[in-house]
Amino acid sequence: MKINGKPYRTIWPHGETSVEVIDQTKLPHELRTQMLRGTEDAVRAIKQMIVRGAPLIGATAAYGIALAMNDDPSDEALDRAHDVLLESRPTAVNLRWALKRMCDVLRNHPRADRAKLAWAEAAKIADEDVEVCHSIGVHGLKVLQDAAAKKAPGETLNVLTHCNAGWLGCVDWGTALAPIYMAYDEGIPIHVWVDETRPRNQGASLTAFELGGHGVPHTIIADNAGGLLMTQGKVDLCIVGTDRVTANGDVANKIGTYLKALAAKDNNVPFHVALPSSTIDWDMAKGADIPIEERSADEILKMTGRTPTGTVVTVDIAAPGSGAANPGFDVTPARLVTGFITEKGTCAANEEGLRALFPERK
Amino acid sequence: MKINGKPYRTIWPHGETSVEVIDQTKLPHELRTQMLRGTEDAVRAIKQMIVRGAPLIGATAAYGIALAMNDDPSDEALDRAHDVLLESRPTAVNLRWALKRMCDVLRNHPRADRAKLAWAEAAKIADEDVEVCHSIGVHGLKVLQDAAAKKAPGETLNVLTHCNAGWLGCVDWGTALAPIYMAYDEGIPIHVWVDETRPRNQGASLTAFELGGHGVPHTIIADNAGGLLMTQGKVDLCIVGTDRVTANGDVANKIGTYLKALAAKDNNVPFHVALPSSTIDWDMAKGADIPIEERSADEILKMTGRTPTGTVVTVDIAAPGSGAANPGFDVTPARLVTGFITEKGTCAANEEGLRALFPERK
Repeated sequence: MKINGKPYRTIWPHGETSVEVIDQTKLPHELRTQMLRGTEDAVRAIKQMIVRGAPLIGATAAYGIALAMNDDPSDEALDRAHDVLLESRPTAVNLRWALKRMCDVLRNHPRADRAKLAWAEAAKIADEDVEVCHSIGVHGLKVLQDAAAKKAPGETLNVLTHCNAGWLGCVDWGTALAPIYMAYDEGIPIHVWVDETRPRNQGASLTAFELGGHGVPHTIIADNAGGLLMTQGKVDLCIVGTDRVTANGDVANKIGTYLKALAAKDNNVPFHVALPSSTIDWDMAKGADIPIEERSADEILKMTGRTPTGTVVTVDIAAPGSGAANPGFDVTPARLVTGFITEKGTCAANEEGLRALFPERK
Repeated sequence: MKINGKPYRTIWPHGETSVEVIDQTKLPHELRTQMLRGTEDAVRAIKQMIVRGAPLIGATAAYGIALAMNDDPSDEALDRAHDVLLESRPTAVNLRWALKRMCDVLRNHPRADRAKLAWAEAAKIADEDVEVCHSIGVHGLKVLQDAAAKKAPGETLNVLTHCNAGWLGCVDWGTALAPIYMAYDEGIPIHVWVDETRPRNQGASLTAFELGGHGVPHTIIADNAGGLLMTQGKVDLCIVGTDRVTANGDVANKIGTYLKALAAKDNNVPFHVALPSSTIDWDMAKGADIPIEERSADEILKMTGRTPTGTVVTVDIAAPGSGAANPGFDVTPARLVTGFITEKGTCAANEEGLRALFPERK
């Protein structure tokens, strides 16, 4: 998508020698990029969250393998690169998947061909992610068009989103934000309520940065405000992303999603979840089985921002001596979800809906 | 209540010459007090939110009149003090009420007696507020005792609260926190989940500071986390304060209260609202009639905290160029409220409940 009129992806190769990425640790305070010139740069980028978001981590790891093959296309070097990249964020599913795919493609080819093949496969992984997100956008656009059709001509369509499910976590387009970009590009008068999304503030920083960069009208709100806006009729629908959908349609997503889904239900506001089908955990029966990650208390107790002179500092914001608990996500039961938007189309948020859309599963 | 073992009120006189207050603009980063030596000091304290919370503003204004009477007990001076204090926070109901009461008491007495009378009446206003809050605490303690009785012996009672309805906004005890202090003092094993309460963070700063100062075990959480904790059975009940209760039992309170009430209902967690009866607006039929105050976007876009060197700074935290909306409170419908805790006792959150507890009204 665009930043100040210029089209960007989150990651792009330079010839077959290096890879450039947007440095997301600096957002939203500064727009900077970093050049990855070797596998160790790719490892560092993933570890330090210079790149974040499952699809983008996968693409970065794939390019990390390509960088390794430039230096040394041996089996040993391939294994070393695989292992060191895999360790950079051990729990990321896309990371493991992308690394396996790269190794499977390269293993049975002569060493002389491996670098070229690796760059081509990494580019393919990136392009496929763009394609999946684009398809989510196309199917989600229909949902937004239908919602817009119910409004008076020219009246603004108000969409609420939580956290960041945008292009910065992917290669381009994003998941929940893809339909919004398409609606905006099509001229639908759209406005996005951006939940700040404490404690990491991915809404106020990343989602607002993304939407602003592309020109999409938006307003940051405290996570506390969405319920009131719904009672006031100021939200036409909600779209969020997800970290994991279980076989029955329960949705794990950034902490606080459940509260917005409750408010949407209480006010008859449609609540949609956008996801690539790779996010569906067919082997997990229900949301209650999902382990909840407990994150650092510092995410609650500290805050990073720009001083009036432009320096970026981290400050302690809470009462000295008080501790914090910081569960990373919650589970929204399927009963509160209006529907799923996937790259294959839309479906009801239940087992039947998912199975009808993905008949190849069981 | 106590701060590090030492009992405090938020405001206390020194003889009949000056008044000391806790400087709440410095909390939670520093504990400092300010000495008010004249009416203009009282005006400044209210305007600059050195004192905040309706009951405390009322008490401060009353002492502001007493300070004026020391200098000049004339009718003209009384009127001047009344007017300048009233203008310091024009929308505060308690301010108007306290000033009228002071003037009514003083007007028909000889000038020579007025200063002494004024100091006595201001002290009475402060003491009466303490008494009301204490009574709320006594009735709320019963609610907590009943909840504790349902747990295994020695098992911790987990209470969730939103915003700050504690002693810092009153003269002592507070409203929602009064029962919690009493339960703690009584030896009930109690733990409080403190909602951070964006955007002004009154939970993470004031409520956590209060509870920590008195020794009550507590944990700060993001406003987003309460729903998950309820689904996990980690919240036994919620208690919040309120800015206004309408005749049908709807509750206006700090933005985000409605979301917690929805989650409580969805998980069968009791949701109590503590209030002095002066907060009941008998003339307003329902919550939908309450005008919602829109506050400054800066409360969302900026954050104040302590740097590693101890300096207190305010930083910009959101994407540059993005705007924010900041409604100050929302309305929790009576159907989501388990009950009211007032200085007269507890009642159901509906018209019948309120009328039964306050038969003198209509």
